[in-house]
Amino acid sequence: MGTSKQEFIDSFSPLVDELVEYLESIKMPADSIAWYRQSLEHNCVGGKLNRGLSVIDSLCILTGKDTLDAETYKKASVLGWAVELLQAFFLVADDMMDQSKTRRGQPCWYLMPKVGNIAINDAFMLEAAIYFLLKKHFKQESYYVDLLELFHDVTFQTELGQMLDLLTAPEDEVDLSKFSLAKHSFIVIYKTAFYSFYLPVALAMFMAGVTDSKDLKQAENILVPLGEYFQVQDDYLDCYGDPAVTGKIGTDILDNKCGWLINKALQKASSSQRSALDSNYGQKDSSAETKVKAIFRELEIEREYQEYEESIVGNIRSQIDSIDESRGLKKQVFEVFLNKIYKRSK
Amino acid sequence: MGTSKQEFIDSFSPLVDELVEYLESIKMPADSIAWYRQSLEHNCVGGKLNRGLSVIDSLCILTGKDTLDAETYKKASVLGWAVELLQAFFLVADDMMDQSKTRRGQPCWYLMPKVGNIAINDAFMLEAAIYFLLKKHFKQESYYVDLLELFHDVTFQTELGQMLDLLTAPEDEVDLSKFSLAKHSFIVIYKTAFYSFYLPVALAMFMAGVTDSKDLKQAENILVPLGEYFQVQDDYLDCYGDPAVTGKIGTDILDNKCGWLINKALQKASSSQRSALDSNYGQKDSSAETKVKAIFRELEIEREYQEYEESIVGNIRSQIDSIDESRGLKKQVFEVFLNKIYKRSK
Repeated sequence: MGTSKQEFIDSFSPLVDELVEYLESIKMPADSIAWYRQSLEHNCVGGKLNRGLSVIDSLCILTGKDTLDAETYKKASVLGWAVELLQAFFLVADDMMDQSKTRRGQPCWYLMPKVGNIAINDAFMLEAAIYFLLKKHFKQESYYVDLLELFHDVTFQTELGQMLDLLTAPEDEVDLSKFSLAKHSFIVIYKTAFYSFYLPVALAMFMAGVTDSKDLKQAENILVPLGEYFQVQDDYLDCYGDPAVTGKIGTDILDNKCGWLINKALQKASSSQRSALDSNYGQKDSSAETKVKAIFRELEIEREYQEYEESIVGNIRSQIDSIDESRGLKKQVFEVFLNKIYKRSK
Repeated sequence: MGTSKQEFIDSFSPLVDELVEYLESIKMPADSIAWYRQSLEHNCVGGKLNRGLSVIDSLCILTGKDTLDAETYKKASVLGWAVELLQAFFLVADDMMDQSKTRRGQPCWYLMPKVGNIAINDAFMLEAAIYFLLKKHFKQESYYVDLLELFHDVTFQTELGQMLDLLTAPEDEVDLSKFSLAKHSFIVIYKTAFYSFYLPVALAMFMAGVTDSKDLKQAENILVPLGEYFQVQDDYLDCYGDPAVTGKIGTDILDNKCGWLINKALQKASSSQRSALDSNYGQKDSSAETKVKAIFRELEIEREYQEYEESIVGNIRSQIDSIDESRGLKKQVFEVFLNKIYKRSK
């Protein structure tokens, strides 16, 4: 059902060719065209592609088809890659703002030879590719303007989440009084949930003709909490996941990240535990990290997480159960998401 | 006729309020809202605002009115500020990529206290404001989707021009073999002419209902060369303008800029002059700059510029004369632009 990852990856190269043909048509010099091609390939391929794939999987469920005909697949893949381009645009910039070193096992784009700050403009051009491709493939569709607005809205939301994250948790200035579970919730909903969960499903809904605003709202009401849950899991796995399984060693405590665990701990901490968190969180120092983890243990943060997980998953399941399918929305879209995520270990 | 600069500036604050009200409605914390407001004000106000003003002036000409009624003025000001937001988005990023220090007599945004690389996300949010405001004020208009596509297209074009500029003339690696008048022409058309000249007029045309594709093409065919001429003047004034009049001391030679003068010089240089240019252009050193200027003098680059100016202005004038006004386009739109620019000294 849906699409194989390889089939989806194979659908990228014709889209790159379309962008390259446009640049050739306006007589852009060859080395600039090669640069853009390399940016597209470096920054869009190499990850899990879950967001892009979920456009196609959701469309299959909504249209009740195991496989899509070639023309429908092509269009769905454009939307899937548009989501991946949006993510690439954000990640190129996030890596610069966080001074990250690697991404998907490769150097971050801005650290590649000769790139540096040119990566800012390259990020812009990843975003521009979205609208170029939407125009080329969807201009004739009645829902074209809805797609444009959806991308605009979700882009702004993601940037708002990123702004709050950057202002709440600057890497070099620890101030836990800025943190709170409410801010954490805003950050993860805006920075992650809208573009990673709501956007792919909403795109599939437009293609499937399930576009009543009541249905978009039903989808949003489930996918936003689901995305929040996903990000809280991410925060949990950063500290308690098995690096052999997750493939990475967590650095959230060292990096002063405004994650769920520290916010839960701050909510429960006594004043002496709070002092210890104040002096040890966000320090680039593994003994400070060990002290923070000890306080997490005292506060039973792992158990708090298990309780959170059971509670939020219960809520999401009951919301899925009560979905009104009369206009074409399908509970299965959300069940598939939840089943992929529930109790994941990586 | 048209609008006063102060009236246009006064129309910005209600738009900032609309953005702020949206952030308040989603319960964004107050310090983040204050941050966004400051970014909008720092980055959009303080310049000449020619691009934004020319939307309103062009609309007045196209509709044959000396002043616009309040509702029309409000809408035109949204489009004018959308152009200024687009420019702000580019300039925040350009200043980071160029490591500039000041802009419009103030520190560049990324150099303001606590900003740094957060400016990348702030630039994104200046762009996002465009689509937020267009949706709020133009969603009901038949030409709404045309406005969206126009901004998308021009944004991509500007980024392509910026890419070629960054790859052709990196500040720290002088290689004049990468330069050419053809590349210079591409850079200035894509990086400057589309968004500074074509975009404001095309926006006014949509509002005025002058939207036949033949008319948009007529406008583009005049405004793109006009924008190219404007940028060539800029390059000329950087070297030969009077700092007391222009208000700035040119640094294009020191900064390895791919400007018109050096490209014209490269076209004419003997092999010994070429060697001297190779070793002195783009060096952070005023005696090297003096040597480059001496070669410009030997090659009579100032006279070349005067000839270029007369020739391009002659072409533009004859193109304006031959405009077909039958569907509502007006020669006067372009005459006003040309008269502002011709033989300007600042």
